[in-house]
Amino acid sequence: MKRREFNQSLASSVAFLSLPRWQPQSTLRVNGPRIAEHLVALSQFGKNPQGGVSRVAYSEADRQGREYVMGLMRAADLDVKVDAAGNLVGRRGGSDRALKPLAMGSHIDSVPEGGNYDGDVGSFSAIEIAQTLAEKGVTTRRSLEVIVFADEEGGTIGSHALSAEVTAKQLDLVSNSGKTIREGIKFIGGDADKLATARRKRGDLAAYLELHIEQGGVLDTEKINIGVVEGIVGITHWEVRIDGFANHAGTTPMNQRHDAMLAAARFIDAVNRVVTSIPGRQVGTIGKIQAWPGAYNVIPGKVVLGLELRDLDNARVQTMYQKIRSEADAISRSTGTSFDFTQTEEIMPAPTDERLRKLIEDTAKSLGLSTKRLPSGAGHDAQEIARLCPVGMIFVPSVGGISHSPKEYSRPEDITNGANVLLNSLLKLDTTLI
Amino acid sequence: MKRREFNQSLASSVAFLSLPRWQPQSTLRVNGPRIAEHLVALSQFGKNPQGGVSRVAYSEADRQGREYVMGLMRAADLDVKVDAAGNLVGRRGGSDRALKPLAMGSHIDSVPEGGNYDGDVGSFSAIEIAQTLAEKGVTTRRSLEVIVFADEEGGTIGSHALSAEVTAKQLDLVSNSGKTIREGIKFIGGDADKLATARRKRGDLAAYLELHIEQGGVLDTEKINIGVVEGIVGITHWEVRIDGFANHAGTTPMNQRHDAMLAAARFIDAVNRVVTSIPGRQVGTIGKIQAWPGAYNVIPGKVVLGLELRDLDNARVQTMYQKIRSEADAISRSTGTSFDFTQTEEIMPAPTDERLRKLIEDTAKSLGLSTKRLPSGAGHDAQEIARLCPVGMIFVPSVGGISHSPKEYSRPEDITNGANVLLNSLLKLDTTLI
Repeated sequence: MKRREFNQSLASSVAFLSLPRWQPQSTLRVNGPRIAEHLVALSQFGKNPQGGVSRVAYSEADRQGREYVMGLMRAADLDVKVDAAGNLVGRRGGSDRALKPLAMGSHIDSVPEGGNYDGDVGSFSAIEIAQTLAEKGVTTRRSLEVIVFADEEGGTIGSHALSAEVTAKQLDLVSNSGKTIREGIKFIGGDADKLATARRKRGDLAAYLELHIEQGGVLDTEKINIGVVEGIVGITHWEVRIDGFANHAGTTPMNQRHDAMLAAARFIDAVNRVVTSIPGRQVGTIGKIQAWPGAYNVIPGKVVLGLELRDLDNARVQTMYQKIRSEADAISRSTGTSFDFTQTEEIMPAPTDERLRKLIEDTAKSLGLSTKRLPSGAGHDAQEIARLCPVGMIFVPSVGGISHSPKEYSRPEDITNGANVLLNSLLKLDTTLI
Repeated sequence: MKRREFNQSLASSVAFLSLPRWQPQSTLRVNGPRIAEHLVALSQFGKNPQGGVSRVAYSEADRQGREYVMGLMRAADLDVKVDAAGNLVGRRGGSDRALKPLAMGSHIDSVPEGGNYDGDVGSFSAIEIAQTLAEKGVTTRRSLEVIVFADEEGGTIGSHALSAEVTAKQLDLVSNSGKTIREGIKFIGGDADKLATARRKRGDLAAYLELHIEQGGVLDTEKINIGVVEGIVGITHWEVRIDGFANHAGTTPMNQRHDAMLAAARFIDAVNRVVTSIPGRQVGTIGKIQAWPGAYNVIPGKVVLGLELRDLDNARVQTMYQKIRSEADAISRSTGTSFDFTQTEEIMPAPTDERLRKLIEDTAKSLGLSTKRLPSGAGHDAQEIARLCPVGMIFVPSVGGISHSPKEYSRPEDITNGANVLLNSLLKLDTTLI
């Protein structure tokens, strides 16, 4: 279990200088087609025959994708290091070394059977910005860091390592690659025994900006160019174990069964009922299930499933959870089974910095792009970095709202718009942040 | 899909001679403790740390268990051959070689995480009878065959091969061992290309008797020694595939989901409702489930589950299935998913021979044992052999009605009773069957 608290007081620890108008460099533009080329090239690593990728963190595909990305970072004149958590950190020196650096980044690992935009768009846009600055000979006041975080999809492990302790228990969890996180970190060139060296202190970074695909359908449906993220919802995971009694499916009468599968079915339906019974944008999902022993002719004696609840308001999550527990108690009694809940993840909601929201909005408008404020239903590395410094997030549209799927797609022009907003927000921040 | 028709006309193809009283050999008794020792010895092959065995057909544990069993068969003076389906066939010559042999047997493969009695009790009792006859110097009129069938739990494959064609499609199915059935047959010493040599013609066997644990709780609850089986229920399996749409669990609103897991949950509950809504002894089970891609943070886009229905009356199974299809249609509409049903198994109900039921009953009574007629909710090799000759089945109590579980248990005295009924039924049959 991870508990991650967002420190609200951080927002007041930095100050902005009011500028009367745009600086000349605000008219810089990224090379959009180059980002698109890099996305296509990366899509080969972990490519699935039926489309999309399974480039899960710490897999061979992940390792090869990271090699490719490091090459691009070096080509963009970044000084690249792999930190102890396996994050790829590319640094570009600024003119005033006394100032704390500005950071931007994302990730390139995917969910199993994922798509080619989640994380990749933000990673390549950040690298493209470094490349653009190098090509145009622009030196920022503050140093810049482009960070491609390790293992975002498996629990924002890489960005977590920058801002908090990764516990021994977390390191021993088995990731989707089949390796423990500890083994995975070593596999990609990090060292789990030296994670303290990857850790940053509060204030070590001046601010963090992340561009990402929306992964929902709001911007696409409403035909809006840029999403200005209000905050990242909290995410809680429970492993739910249901114990019944395995018995012969042919000889055990229906009324003498302790059927863990039937109990699981009623539980899944109950979770849906609880989550949809109150107004709001909260979501609840059962994404994983396993039944034992798992044969046509045996009544399952054990089922383990994964429950996830998300909302911007943590109190609402707790309310839903209590109602779900009550439903489980009733199902337990009616099916002769028992339920056990183990919280395996708790990420608290993380609001973005209001002044960064405004900066992104203004930048987008100056580029002639429409904006809308919205929450992020998905977790992001930005929520981890929010413990270190003010964060801002930029969304670009996901066609059809599809994500974590081979059908995930964002249009090249939308990605270019997002990268230009990121570039110019960064430049404005460099000149206005005291 | 397998279609297996029981030929009712067979029952009239043999005739019995009425005997006024028991013959002297009817007082023979098996060595019960020796059966118990053999059960303990076999339990080592595929033993699970938490109890019971996973000696699934075609596994290394199965292969080793079969080696052990062949040693016992040879020690009982049986002439042992492995047929092309991998069945262990032990023959003991009779005094009149013009007569067709009597057969008895069962199996030694288990379900995953199964127990130490299902199949093993019948196999070792049949071998014990051969041993007893050898030790007492008894020569029967008819030759005897002791058959330990291969892969009973994976679809009565070995006994099916004796009485019907095993299709190429069946041979290519992947068994619980991870091997295809074709590979598995080779692994245990058979040859899938020569299955025709294992095939028997109708009338090649005079009769078949099988002793088995009840696997239900009727005999144990009612404290009855011997179950006289009326018939074996029909079993139908369907692979049910539910297609939804995989999407991000954080960003996809509840009302825009096509959640295959939610549809599966409602389906499982509906199956239970349909099966329990009509009076009778029918059962319906969902024993298997898999969801894709299978992560906390992805709405499942595909779920595949295994549906099994069993009843002595095939018309009732069809009625339940039609109701289940209607429920699936409604769930499909309400969840935005689609259902696809593939029948993967159909075993028709197989009644036992009325004269063999009577013979078993009379034999049990002569040994001072109580009897009860009951159906078998479980499938057995006897249902396959019923296509070749009249079959009779003897049940002994399962404590607590538990089976297909490490907690499966039958008392040694009950097993000895069952073996003595089998022995003396066989001897009576040998003298009365014309």
